[in-house]
Amino acid sequence: MADQKPHVAFIGLGAMGFGMATHLIKQGYPVTGFDVWAPTLKRFEEAGGLTATTPADAVLNKQHVVVMVATAQQAQSVLLDGPNAAVPQLPQGAVVLLCSTVPCDYVQALQAQLNSIGRSDILLVDSPVSGGAARAADGTLSIMAGMSAAALEKGRALLAELSDPAKLYIVEGGIGAGSNMKMVHQVLAANQILGASEVMGFAERLGLNLAKAQKAVLESDAWNFMFEHRTPRIFTQFQPVASAVQIIVKDTSIITSEGRRSSFATPMTNTAEQIYFTAIGRGWAMDDDSSLVRLYTEGNGKVGPVHGTAESEEEKTCLVLDLMRGILLCAAAESLAFAHAVNLDLDQVLDLCVNAAGGSKVLEKLGPAIIKEIRGGAGDAAAGETSLTGIFDGLKAAVEEAQRIKTPLYLGTQALSILQRVTQSNTTGSAGVVVKAWL
Amino acid sequence: MADQKPHVAFIGLGAMGFGMATHLIKQGYPVTGFDVWAPTLKRFEEAGGLTATTPADAVLNKQHVVVMVATAQQAQSVLLDGPNAAVPQLPQGAVVLLCSTVPCDYVQALQAQLNSIGRSDILLVDSPVSGGAARAADGTLSIMAGMSAAALEKGRALLAELSDPAKLYIVEGGIGAGSNMKMVHQVLAANQILGASEVMGFAERLGLNLAKAQKAVLESDAWNFMFEHRTPRIFTQFQPVASAVQIIVKDTSIITSEGRRSSFATPMTNTAEQIYFTAIGRGWAMDDDSSLVRLYTEGNGKVGPVHGTAESEEEKTCLVLDLMRGILLCAAAESLAFAHAVNLDLDQVLDLCVNAAGGSKVLEKLGPAIIKEIRGGAGDAAAGETSLTGIFDGLKAAVEEAQRIKTPLYLGTQALSILQRVTQSNTTGSAGVVVKAWL
Repeated sequence: MADQKPHVAFIGLGAMGFGMATHLIKQGYPVTGFDVWAPTLKRFEEAGGLTATTPADAVLNKQHVVVMVATAQQAQSVLLDGPNAAVPQLPQGAVVLLCSTVPCDYVQALQAQLNSIGRSDILLVDSPVSGGAARAADGTLSIMAGMSAAALEKGRALLAELSDPAKLYIVEGGIGAGSNMKMVHQVLAANQILGASEVMGFAERLGLNLAKAQKAVLESDAWNFMFEHRTPRIFTQFQPVASAVQIIVKDTSIITSEGRRSSFATPMTNTAEQIYFTAIGRGWAMDDDSSLVRLYTEGNGKVGPVHGTAESEEEKTCLVLDLMRGILLCAAAESLAFAHAVNLDLDQVLDLCVNAAGGSKVLEKLGPAIIKEIRGGAGDAAAGETSLTGIFDGLKAAVEEAQRIKTPLYLGTQALSILQRVTQSNTTGSAGVVVKAWL
Repeated sequence: MADQKPHVAFIGLGAMGFGMATHLIKQGYPVTGFDVWAPTLKRFEEAGGLTATTPADAVLNKQHVVVMVATAQQAQSVLLDGPNAAVPQLPQGAVVLLCSTVPCDYVQALQAQLNSIGRSDILLVDSPVSGGAARAADGTLSIMAGMSAAALEKGRALLAELSDPAKLYIVEGGIGAGSNMKMVHQVLAANQILGASEVMGFAERLGLNLAKAQKAVLESDAWNFMFEHRTPRIFTQFQPVASAVQIIVKDTSIITSEGRRSSFATPMTNTAEQIYFTAIGRGWAMDDDSSLVRLYTEGNGKVGPVHGTAESEEEKTCLVLDLMRGILLCAAAESLAFAHAVNLDLDQVLDLCVNAAGGSKVLEKLGPAIIKEIRGGAGDAAAGETSLTGIFDGLKAAVEEAQRIKTPLYLGTQALSILQRVTQSNTTGSAGVVVKAWL
């Protein structure tokens, strides 16, 4: 029957994978799940799934496989290296959607290994996802997929089932391109997750009412998805834990490693990563990442007699927005410049990121100017366009005030260092010119 | 009598000032001291000094005045703005050595204010010092002095008395030039103080024996003054407190503020400053700055199962030295590029810094190549010269290992970001080419 849904093997039933797999069940797919954690398998059966006790058993006679484990090491283990790995049992011509976030060079090496062991018949799809557990369970994820034409043909229905129709991105460049797309998106995520804590921490150290400061950001052109989704938990003792610190560290590790491998400097993400390591070193790996605000607020009352120059609530709020904009601009430039360095289609990157967890009003508004600059020069700021010096001056004022009140601004200060360099030789440019620091 | 030593007024009898003032007493100068803290005055009398209860009283009829207070604000207060300020009581033509570390623009504004109130007869000397309390008491400080010819003539004997003859630097450029010289020296100090903790913290996280790692650095070309002087206190619970965290923060504040004022980016010092603020936020402002090693070591046992790739003690030690060299190179480049931006004589800066607390073997060896690059291109690495890629590759290996074991390397990672940028377009250059990142 044409309408018969194929039997899917699903490997990795964590927060994301469980939602994705049970969504497939609801859509009428028979799904055989595997996970290393037994209680999850029981829950999966209760949700209507079939289960297997090894990856090899799970994929037996399945033409469709989804892998949603946490890391490249785990993917390698379940597919090839571990006891009862899946690949030897895969039937000819099966399609494998690798949805985990992995480095580009890992998924390329995986394809090479499949070829070298005589399994080039397997149709690998490099298809990391974004959107969080709720959208995973709804089948409305963002998916960025690179693969061969044959793999796309066979995998497309499954990709469509798991994603929002407007958010399924077929990325040119084959295996590795999907992972690169995810990586450059995560540049935004990594900076904006810490940015949310940095901006709220700064607001607290300035003595602002936090709820009002939060609202001001959300209603301004400094709005960004991460800020909207992270900061509510600052008011609830960082509960519930929606995304632990250790999760984003997996992504920063991919970003900065790939940056080193491809000789592309990622100063913003490098800074964020050191602060994530700091948090892990303090024992906060399993805490919600919104709790990083503690790194900023703990100085309250410990810095001695200090006095800022901003007096009114309006002035202070302005500094808070300036800080957020500066971070957002540099995160956007680092992301798009990295996308260019790994040969992605910048218009597609921008469209994906604006509509995903990396989205921000700054990216939406200034992304096109950054892309124009990457392609050969954005020139002077047009009338009504945000100028580089406008963002620079605001960020400088925020960093100066933070210095007076001895509050660290890890990302804000790094962004200012970058903007300082660029403004040394570009005083009339559009804000897009900041990307020169990465080119 | 030609041999009669003049009566000196000495304002500010802290750790440095007390040593300097009592040294003058030992050399036969009558000295009248003033300090806001009464117990110090009592101690000063016991050491043979005369005392005054106000700055005005201290300077009455004195042709020679030394000011060694902690900040520009204090200098302004004792000289002009505070109750019983000194200037109105100063006799015509008195020489005033301002030895405090202050921003260039402060001491220039002070000169302008003296002129505007009709006291251009006062011979101001902009003469910050370096060397620590022991050398202050020995009269063997490094002094960097900018002033008019008349002020030099009248102040030279006193400057010579307080300094090592080889370490009295007369800086071209008049008032402000001495402070700028001190500032660029402190770029080295600020980075190398934190660097000592970062390198020792990394060694501990790698599982090295700390005493052996320390020895390896001291006996290698990664030697630097701060490392030698700071790291011993890591073995004695950071006791005695020789230099509190809050002291170096005064200097970073001058460096980064002046950088912003003169549109010169100081990414290394900016990074260091954020970490100093972090330490202050944790309540460590009064702790010895060697205790910053805690920011790195606290992750021991908290980062989950991690595994580096360096196995042998030799490999690990190599990474430690690589990290130190990378930090030293970027600190040297930031310092010399800043010196160039504020129009200092680079040869003099190098000579001063190599022989002061900012000294390092990397600065001594690679400083000339950095200066050559600033002056118009150092070209390819000569035979036997350290290449940029050599330092880059080593630092990259250290940062990669730190990432595997989830140890933050704030300075090392910032240095790597900078080196990555430069190596993108300079692969054959001498290590001096790194300074391009600041030009």
